[in-house]
Amino acid sequence: MYPIEGYLEIAFPDEETARIIYESVLYEHKTVPYRRSRIEFMREGRKVVIQFLARDSSALRGTLNSYLRWIKVAADALDL
Amino acid sequence: MYPIEGYLEIAFPDEETARIIYESVLYEHKTVPYRRSRIEFMREGRKVVIQFLARDSSALRGTLNSYLRWIKVAADALDL
Repeated sequence: MYPIEGYLEIAFPDEETARIIYESVLYEHKTVPYRRSRIEFMREGRKVVIQFLARDSSALRGTLNSYLRWIKVAADALDL
Repeated sequence: MYPIEGYLEIAFPDEETARIIYESVLYEHKTVPYRRSRIEFMREGRKVVIQFLARDSSALRGTLNSYLRWIKVAADALDL
């Protein structure tokens, strides 16, 4: 069903930065449906963590691309 | 110098699949220079692992996008 599984963690300079980026991406995470992947999105201290299951390589790339784009938008707003 | 650090692991159904994808991406990893990020690229059993340091959010997204693109090309060739 989900032959590809994975884990992405990104550590920011401090917990406050991670918290702001996490909250910003969480909004997108909650509103965008993904039918070809399953995603857990978390914050652990100064890290933002994405755990995912993907049905195929397109779902893998598409899903991570979306999260990376949202993270970049939030990080840019913080001049990171 | 590198305010963003991170870790991406992707697990494939078996070690042989991971090995083929790893070898394919390794070629790109060795030939493309990245000046705004530092990357370790490894295989651990059925997992492909990318450890990275990025100078800014653009370097973060650009770097991971490249690896995800290469991984997708290799996975597509395996019909994954």
